[in-house]
Amino acid sequence: MTTHPAQAPEVLISEVGPRDGLQSVKTTMPTADKLRWIDALVAAGVREIEVASFVPARLLPQMADAAEVVRHALRHEGLTVMALVPNLRGAEAALRAGVHKLTMPVSASREHSLANVRKTPEAMVDEVRAIARLRDELAPGVKLEAGISTAFGCTLQGKVPEDDVIRLAALCVAAGADESGLSDTVGYANPAQVRRLFRRLRIELGEKAGAAHMHNTRGLGLANCLAAWEEGVRTFDSSLGGLGGCPYAPGASGNVVTEDLVFMFEAMGVRTGIDLGDIVAARAPLAAGLPGEPLYGMTPDAGLPKGFVPQP
Amino acid sequence: MTTHPAQAPEVLISEVGPRDGLQSVKTTMPTADKLRWIDALVAAGVREIEVASFVPARLLPQMADAAEVVRHALRHEGLTVMALVPNLRGAEAALRAGVHKLTMPVSASREHSLANVRKTPEAMVDEVRAIARLRDELAPGVKLEAGISTAFGCTLQGKVPEDDVIRLAALCVAAGADESGLSDTVGYANPAQVRRLFRRLRIELGEKAGAAHMHNTRGLGLANCLAAWEEGVRTFDSSLGGLGGCPYAPGASGNVVTEDLVFMFEAMGVRTGIDLGDIVAARAPLAAGLPGEPLYGMTPDAGLPKGFVPQP
Repeated sequence: MTTHPAQAPEVLISEVGPRDGLQSVKTTMPTADKLRWIDALVAAGVREIEVASFVPARLLPQMADAAEVVRHALRHEGLTVMALVPNLRGAEAALRAGVHKLTMPVSASREHSLANVRKTPEAMVDEVRAIARLRDELAPGVKLEAGISTAFGCTLQGKVPEDDVIRLAALCVAAGADESGLSDTVGYANPAQVRRLFRRLRIELGEKAGAAHMHNTRGLGLANCLAAWEEGVRTFDSSLGGLGGCPYAPGASGNVVTEDLVFMFEAMGVRTGIDLGDIVAARAPLAAGLPGEPLYGMTPDAGLPKGFVPQP
Repeated sequence: MTTHPAQAPEVLISEVGPRDGLQSVKTTMPTADKLRWIDALVAAGVREIEVASFVPARLLPQMADAAEVVRHALRHEGLTVMALVPNLRGAEAALRAGVHKLTMPVSASREHSLANVRKTPEAMVDEVRAIARLRDELAPGVKLEAGISTAFGCTLQGKVPEDDVIRLAALCVAAGADESGLSDTVGYANPAQVRRLFRRLRIELGEKAGAAHMHNTRGLGLANCLAAWEEGVRTFDSSLGGLGGCPYAPGASGNVVTEDLVFMFEAMGVRTGIDLGDIVAARAPLAAGLPGEPLYGMTPDAGLPKGFVPQP
């Protein structure tokens, strides 16, 4: 019952479940299930999906089928097919697979950066520059996003100075990224901080200020998205069923839950282009591919309010 | 390790667990456990508690000890002891027990009002007037609050016109209520609607505009509290562990979770006067008194961010 909205969507919900979500899950999802899940997301009106990450299969067997998943996703006209790439080698593979958009994680916490990718933030900016050059050679139309991780704090380092975050985002854009967003990697963000940082980011980068990637570790995921929206952010990362788990909070989802995020915006009268019934239905192929994996989200259980009419 | 804040709190978290929470729970909590729970809440810095409801014991055995609970709570100096009263008879009992504040539920949905208290909203305004007079006679210093329930929608009636909500709140204040707040009884509210309605309420009632009572049925509890705060609301109802359950959403808490709400404000730099470690510790007597009852909240599981320092 997809009802294609008569008017253009006002926010872009960028679904990260097939990459970010799966990467935190122990079970390897069969490729066929991934493809059905992606199809269901697209049928619900999702227009951008982070479908895979291009990393060595021996490090992450979950992503061994990245090229095949990309190839399938590319059949959906109008869908922006995005992949995460940690380095130049991954970027080359993703570009050859034909993705529309690359996303790179660049950590503002030096400690987290070294622990995660064994590189300093500055070395990662060099990697952004190298990838931007490769992109210019191989596929000039492909977008490159740098997501500043641990932008709101870090479990290793604690506080992350706001100046470091904004400077790093600006360096990534100067190095060739088309946009740079902010990620609350460990669920430390609060709405006042989200407002402050995105306001600064937008002053610094203008239209190159990118997505809000919020986590729900301490229950503040939607409140933080609301704060970002009020500062003018119009792209939000989230994952179906909150897939992504969270090592710190048993029973707590890591990523913001797509279903609840879509409900919040639609209830506010902000068009997402996503059908609420269909996005809840997209949980079925996800659950089938990951039997026993807990799915989060309140709206799927509670149902829609009586007389609820999404924006046309 | 209660550290009494050096500066005055900026928001009032009104804990409703011992009344609103328990009223949705099947098990009757032993009185001794209720008293320990209230003591732990006060030790954490909670300054207002809805401790009981004054209704016939045969209808609600959970509240048969209301007068005893009030008597105990009154020993805590500085604590505002509040009770819910659905009618004049309950108000008289509560006033004789010595409460500081009465709260009355007045539903803006005609259907919900008839189903819930077998009275129209207009008849409930008459009840507010009668209770205000009784209060003036028996205990003139006692505050009377009218909480407008189903203010954001109703499972029976569907949409509730905003004009009806604001008019009803104004009638309650004209009838003698000292303040009137808005309740999202069934978890239908969204942040845009919360902003609109509280803005109108504050224009209409000025300083007599009361608390935001939000539910977390569809995950929007904290986002709605944030929206209300941004409109100038400074009193928020919530319940420890999200006690209150929700008939519509299995696994979903009904009331906003006190622990997460306190974390959100403290993280934003908004002083609550509540110690986060101690409020999490207050879950122990609650759990002891209701064995097997699920408690919600993400912050207790996730813990505080590294280097987190609440506002002095």
